[in-house]
Amino acid sequence: MTKTIAIIGSGMMGSALAFPLSDNGHTVRLVGTPLDEEIIASIQTRGFHPTLKFRMPKNVTAFLFGEMAKALDGADFVVGGVSSFGVEWFAREVLPALPDTMPVISVTKGLKDLEDGSMITFPEYLQQLCPANKRPLCAIGGPCTSYELAARQHSTVAFCGYDEGVLQMLKETFETSYYHVTATTDVRGIETAVAFKNAYALAISMAVGIKQSEDGLDCTLSYNPQAGIFGQSVREISRFIQFMGGQPEHIDFGAGDLYVTVYGGRTRKLGVLLGRGIPYAEARHILQGITLESVEIATRSARAVRKLAAAGKLNAEDFPLLLHVYDVITNGAKVKIPWEKFR
Amino acid sequence: MTKTIAIIGSGMMGSALAFPLSDNGHTVRLVGTPLDEEIIASIQTRGFHPTLKFRMPKNVTAFLFGEMAKALDGADFVVGGVSSFGVEWFAREVLPALPDTMPVISVTKGLKDLEDGSMITFPEYLQQLCPANKRPLCAIGGPCTSYELAARQHSTVAFCGYDEGVLQMLKETFETSYYHVTATTDVRGIETAVAFKNAYALAISMAVGIKQSEDGLDCTLSYNPQAGIFGQSVREISRFIQFMGGQPEHIDFGAGDLYVTVYGGRTRKLGVLLGRGIPYAEARHILQGITLESVEIATRSARAVRKLAAAGKLNAEDFPLLLHVYDVITNGAKVKIPWEKFR
Repeated sequence: MTKTIAIIGSGMMGSALAFPLSDNGHTVRLVGTPLDEEIIASIQTRGFHPTLKFRMPKNVTAFLFGEMAKALDGADFVVGGVSSFGVEWFAREVLPALPDTMPVISVTKGLKDLEDGSMITFPEYLQQLCPANKRPLCAIGGPCTSYELAARQHSTVAFCGYDEGVLQMLKETFETSYYHVTATTDVRGIETAVAFKNAYALAISMAVGIKQSEDGLDCTLSYNPQAGIFGQSVREISRFIQFMGGQPEHIDFGAGDLYVTVYGGRTRKLGVLLGRGIPYAEARHILQGITLESVEIATRSARAVRKLAAAGKLNAEDFPLLLHVYDVITNGAKVKIPWEKFR
Repeated sequence: MTKTIAIIGSGMMGSALAFPLSDNGHTVRLVGTPLDEEIIASIQTRGFHPTLKFRMPKNVTAFLFGEMAKALDGADFVVGGVSSFGVEWFAREVLPALPDTMPVISVTKGLKDLEDGSMITFPEYLQQLCPANKRPLCAIGGPCTSYELAARQHSTVAFCGYDEGVLQMLKETFETSYYHVTATTDVRGIETAVAFKNAYALAISMAVGIKQSEDGLDCTLSYNPQAGIFGQSVREISRFIQFMGGQPEHIDFGAGDLYVTVYGGRTRKLGVLLGRGIPYAEARHILQGITLESVEIATRSARAVRKLAAAGKLNAEDFPLLLHVYDVITNGAKVKIPWEKFR
């Protein structure tokens, strides 16, 4: 049975999710945030998404934010398509407009760090903001870049949430021959795995920059150092998954996501510059205009681990790589991979 | 205190291990197998390793196999530097020539599959061949290409064995500012992790070839499919580590090794050709002259899992990717990633 889905947030990832939904014959209403007006105008007039750089598929209608009520009318569920910068806005402007039991599945990656250093997943955070609601809140994690999803490349993701029936409904609604969905109630494991990979993708990319600073920009890349940092990343992410009470085996999504982030993402550019010895502030300046959500997520993760370690809740020695990344991006420290502290 | 070490087998990896040993001031005696006579001649006359393409460091003396007794005289321990093709030869020709308690650390990767499909690590296999011996048998695993080790790039490896005192001695002897050693008694976990990555590196590379066959050789690579296969690889390797009785957390070495093999190794070439739709026999022909030890290791792993599944000792559904690789390389099957069987 076909469904009607409202996607709120027409950035690249929110919009890319329209592709499997449309391919499955569902009706998609894509609602821009107030920041997305140009995107919505382009889709409405030309059917073309200007940042994703794809013609939107059939079955998709675009709405300005002011038309959200119309888009929500008769919708079966909502996709939260905002980045982690927009979570508070989503909680304030969108959630109250939805029927109390309407499911929401969010693409927002990352964990939110609280004042005391503890971290919560976005489904848990949104739940806290609307404690009276019985809304099933779900999230999408896993290695999936928006432009490859829109190109209908095979992509594997995890849908996580606490209501198994809703998860199953969402899986059936989204799954196509190229969009492969694993449903799991391990919200903390999945969200931790995919949030933490951002900081570690920076660290692996730094190894590329270090080599370039030693042997020139056209040097042969070395893989032993990258692989060593990759292994330590897997170790540290696994430790934090366990600390969060998640299932250790969900490092599988973290490792795959780390892989795609090092090679397919913008995080690499920043990591390479840092590895070349360019201080963080200058590297950010060089990359200006690029919204580095991943840097924000990396900063949150590292800041939280630092606080938790300072409070004696975590052992700092278990996270030498993450804490070094923190020093580099918040204290302007020079990159120096702490090899001797690995394990 | 400096030591004297005999490395038996002067191929690329055996010889690369001379670099950290030499840098630590130890005396290295590099003994060629009967297949290594040209290498030994080159080192003896020019100090140059012709396949590793590095000048050998100081403190290294090269010996022909006929001179092994001289090389062993006064040695503290032996490094087994042969590939998995040479393990039986090493057991037959080298082990009996060593004092019964002289430690051996071997770079030989992979597991040996027995007739019934069960697999044993090389330290265990060598122990079976010399059951009366009390020799401490150790092995090296982890993401480390020989040419980058010789270039003194940071490399992280695991030394595994059952004698903690010997492991500690070996770690202290080898470890340098760039060669980072973790010592562990989890022989099965480490050896399984690093053996199995060969088959999975083929699978990830296939995704590259599939994309090329669809969009042309100069296409943009897609990373979602690679990352999805990477995640499934981590899942399947972790399962086999557990089946072998190893420690699941040693997937860290497997994941790092998988990463380096996809990007730094020859396995990728074969996987890409297979992904393009070229049958295995033809792909091997195109790559003739390249010794694909990794293919042999991949074949062994897949063959064993298939037998174990057939005997009901393993669930075939837990290893869809490995069993597909098996079909491709032994039955000439066309590449078709079993996405729907993942998880």
